Parts: sequence; C-alpha cells; structure tokens
Amino acid sequence: MQIPTFDDATAARERIAPYIHRTPVLTSSYLNERTGAQLFFKCENFQKAGAFKVRGASNAVFGLPEEIAQKGVATHSSGNHALSLSYAAGRRGIPCYVVMPRTAPQAKKDAVIGYGGTITECEPSTSSREEVFAQVHARTGADFVHPYNDPRVIAGQATCSMELLEQTDGLDAVVAPIGGGGMISGTCLSLSTLAPEVAIYAAEPEQADDAARSFRAGHIIADDAPQTVADGLKVPLKDLTWHFVKTHVSDILTASEEEIIAAMKLIWQRMKIVMEPSSAVPLATILKNPDVFAGKRVGVIITGGNVDLDKLPWMQG
Amino acid sequence: MQIPTFDDATAARERIAPYIHRTPVLTSSYLNERTGAQLFFKCENFQKAGAFKVRGASNAVFGLPEEIAQKGVATHSSGNHALSLSYAAGRRGIPCYVVMPRTAPQAKKDAVIGYGGTITECEPSTSSREEVFAQVHARTGADFVHPYNDPRVIAGQATCSMELLEQTDGLDAVVAPIGGGGMISGTCLSLSTLAPEVAIYAAEPEQADDAARSFRAGHIIADDAPQTVADGLKVPLKDLTWHFVKTHVSDILTASEEEIIAAMKLIWQRMKIVMEPSSAVPLATILKNPDVFAGKRVGVIITGGNVDLDKLPWMQG
Repeated sequence: MQIPTFDDATAARERIAPYIHRTPVLTSSYLNERTGAQLFFKCENFQKAGAFKVRGASNAVFGLPEEIAQKGVATHSSGNHALSLSYAAGRRGIPCYVVMPRTAPQAKKDAVIGYGGTITECEPSTSSREEVFAQVHARTGADFVHPYNDPRVIAGQATCSMELLEQTDGLDAVVAPIGGGGMISGTCLSLSTLAPEVAIYAAEPEQADDAARSFRAGHIIADDAPQTVADGLKVPLKDLTWHFVKTHVSDILTASEEEIIAAMKLIWQRMKIVMEPSSAVPLATILKNPDVFAGKRVGVIITGGNVDLDKLPWMQG
Repeated sequence: MQIPTFDDATAARERIAPYIHRTPVLTSSYLNERTGAQLFFKCENFQKAGAFKVRGASNAVFGLPEEIAQKGVATHSSGNHALSLSYAAGRRGIPCYVVMPRTAPQAKKDAVIGYGGTITECEPSTSSREEVFAQVHARTGADFVHPYNDPRVIAGQATCSMELLEQTDGLDAVVAPIGGGGMISGTCLSLSTLAPEVAIYAAEPEQADDAARSFRAGHIIADDAPQTVADGLKVPLKDLTWHFVKTHVSDILTASEEEIIAAMKLIWQRMKIVMEPSSAVPLATILKNPDVFAGKRVGVIITGGNVDLDKLPWMQG
C-alpha cells in the first residue's frame, strides 16, 4: 500500500492545472438561513467532464512516463471515472480502454466515445467485469487506473479542497459524499496538512451505508449490491481510502433516499445548478443534523453534474 | 414618453449594487466548438430572486422618495417581475401589491408571499387583470412599476450588459431574448454608449414573433395570446421598448418550440445550470444561424432560472 503524501498532492496540482477548471464556490442565503450555517458549495459539477474525478484521472494520465503512456490507460467504470479518464487520455493523445456493463446508460457510453475512449462491454456482474477487464488489460498492456484506490487518483482529488480553502476565508468543517472514498481521502490528504483544525465529515446514503458501518466497526465492511439513487456511492472502501477515513474523518453521517432527493431538488431550485443525486447527500445530512453544523462555516463538495435529464428522481413513479 | 439616459443607467448601477449579485459569466468549450463562435453566457439565473428583473425592480423601488415609498409599489405579473418587485420592496421594507391570475403556479405565489408581497388574484384575462389592478392601485395609492415599459426598469436592466462588458475582453455581438423588450432596451441603453460597435440581436420564439414582425413592419404589432414554452416572452413591445428596438437592434431572430427546448436541454446538460425556456431562445437562434455568429465573440444573456422542476418541457407529452 503506497499512501500518497502532501507533496504528491502539490505535484498533482501543478501537473493537472492546464486540463481542469478551478471551479467556483457558490453560496445561497436561503440555504444559510435554512441550516443556520454558512455553506460554501464547491461546484465540481462545472468541472471538465462534469465531475471531480477528472482531477485524479488527469494526475494519473499526465504523470505516466512516455513509454508507459504510449500503451494507454484502462479502467472499469460505468460512471464519471470512465468519462474522466477518457477525457484525460484524449488530452494527452493516448488510448483509453474502458470496460462498461452493457446496461450502462447510452449517454455515458456516447460521452466516453466522444472523448476518444474505447469501450468493451461486459455483463452487469462483478465476475464478468473482472474477467473482461483482465482480457482487455492483458491484450493492451495499458496502465490500470483504479477509480479511487490509487495514490495518483487520491493525490489528484486532493487538489479540490486545496482550492476550496483558498476560495473561502476559513472553514470549520467540510462535508463530502463517500462511496469508494476517493474524494474524502483527497480531502483528508490536503486538509490534514493545510488546515488540520477543519473537521471532515463524510455523507452517505442510508441504503449504501457500508462506509458508516466500517467506520463504527473499525474495519472495512463491503456490501454486495446496495441500491440507492446516489449511484456514484455504491462502491466499497478499499485499503488506501480506508486508511484516510479511519485516520482523519470526524464522522460519517447518513441520509435516506427521500432526504437525498429532497436536498437535490432544493439545490436545483434555489441554486439553479444541475448536479447528481450523489452530490446532494452532504446537504441532506446537514439538514438532518442542524446541531452539528449550526453557526459554522461549512464547505460542501458538489461532486458532479452528470445526470440523466429524462429520469430525474423526483419524477419517478 | 420619458426615455431613460445612460446617466440613469449609471445611477441605477450604484443604487442597486447592495441588493443584487454581480452574476458570473460562464463559457462552454463544447458549445464554442458546436457553434464556431466564442460564447459568453451572462448568468442572470443566479441573480437574486432568480432573474435579471430584480435589477429594474430594485432601481424603481430604491429610487422612490420616502413619502411615495411608504405607500408601497404595485404591479401585475405572473412571472419574474412579481418576484423581483416583492424582493426589492421587502429589502426596503415597504408594501408590494401584486395582481396575479388565480391560475398562476402556486410556486410563484408562494415565492411572492415569501418575499413579503401581497397577492390579489384576478381571472386569467386582460380585462379582469386591468379591472382588479385598477382597484388595488386606487385603494393603496402604491406606485405602479410596469414590468418593462418604465424608464426606471429599463435603466436597471441596463446594468446587466455593463457588467457583461467588464467581464469579457471585447465582444462582437450580444444576443438577448425579447418579450416586452425590457432586457433588450437596457442592453441598447448601455451598449450604445459604452460599446456602439457591438451588434445587438434579439431572440424570439417563432410562435410569439410579434417583435420580429414589428421590426420588419416598422411599427408595433401586438399579438393577442401567443402560446410558447418560453412563457416569459409572450408580452408585446410598448412605446419605450419599441424606441430602443427600432433605434439600436441589428436583427430579431426566431426559433421554433423544438429548437428552444433542444437548446434548453443542451445548456442544462453541458453547462450544468438550471435556466428557463425563455433563456434558451438566444442559443437556439445562434445554433440556427451559424453564418451570423461563427468566428465572433458573442455575449448571451441567460435571463432567469425560475422553472417548474416537475414540468420540464422535454418531459411533456
């Protein structure tokens, strides 16, 4: 296990600067009144490829030595990591191989192809995904970039909270969603050096609360196939991200599906931004735990904006 | 007819500064590639009360002498002007009387009340609206602030393109939606002094193209009850706004309902912002007229973000 250092994060910041946006921090006087806190929303939904994942993916891609880079990069993902890695590889002009379940939304497939990625489809099961990915990996010799359990990826995600700190005038806490733990680990990596006084909270769907249960149990608990509207947060912690979670996170808070959807709609209505269900979990937990956050200056990571506009969760059923 | 001057716009800017946002200008590399132009989106969907209308409303409200202000302000509107005037009056602490059709969306009524406005309902017809408004006006003695045909309102709207000019490094053209013509008139007012080389285009739904027909005929043509998804753009030009349109506008371009909805969805998907159908008409006309805009630096006014998230136009039918 190679734990990324603060120097890795500093290097990542310089390396990826030409390829990413310094995303804006938005505020809402309505949501401040409603929560009693001062909320600073770091809007990674405006990021290149529509999500913070492009930070880690770009750091991995642009850190490769030329002879390795020529063979390209590979990953398995049906979500934002697939788009982000394809985008970064496209910017460097190297191949990107993505294994995606054949059931993945066509819009996501189109986006990967639009960025120049090559898709190999698998069945929507872990065994098929692993088998197909092993074949692609062996055939191409491409460098595997894991969606989150990779020191280069975590160092890249760390650049998000570096910016957030500069864009705000002191914070008491930061809340970010937790799935596999890449964003939270990056947040821990930068804040533990730059601002160790800032409390770090992870926000998770009740229906996919494996990280919260891991946190209380003291070891990784992985669920098989959790179901939640926050589709970016279904994956389990791994050794690297677990290291950061157990070392630096103050607490992991959870919210129900209804609370997540209500928070998502509230952000769309009041802040006029398009973001994913996963990105609404932090506000849902803040609304649910006013005692924890009232009177505090709180950074909130809006992780991404890639959502199917034809299937908004408040319009289902 | 009292035509507002550039000095009125300068005074408006200072007067309203404490009550409005200096909204951001966003860009999209995807939309630049797609149109061949460089587009600069002035995001008034992030404005206080969710629309540019708060500029003109605030200028009217905060310009009133104290003895007149005490009696409050009044208007008839089922849209953003009602919200904006209520917001501005609330900030000054004076009454605001709004006549709204009883059929107006409950969300809009709730927002007016939330800002402290008082609603009197009328039937959804011009005659009922005029009759009820005359009663309210006579009873309260409040100052009538017309949604667009008012020099104070036009001077307020002019502050939007003043900011846009400062936020961009030179423009060849600006495109804004046209309904009654308040935003376009304000744009003409500021650009004709600050940057007369910038061509001003108005964008209008084909199904409510009374301004385009007025422009070609050389006199105001008003339609009775046009039907369009761009519900902010159904009202006709009036003498003040017609003066600016005929004097300074280069052309009025139109787009079909399908083109407007497609442009709206494209902006949501690619720019991750929530905005109204009316705000999509400029991009729809730019996509339809590539020869006019290719190679140019074009300011695009995103006029507002107050949309019913339960009734998105691409999900109807």
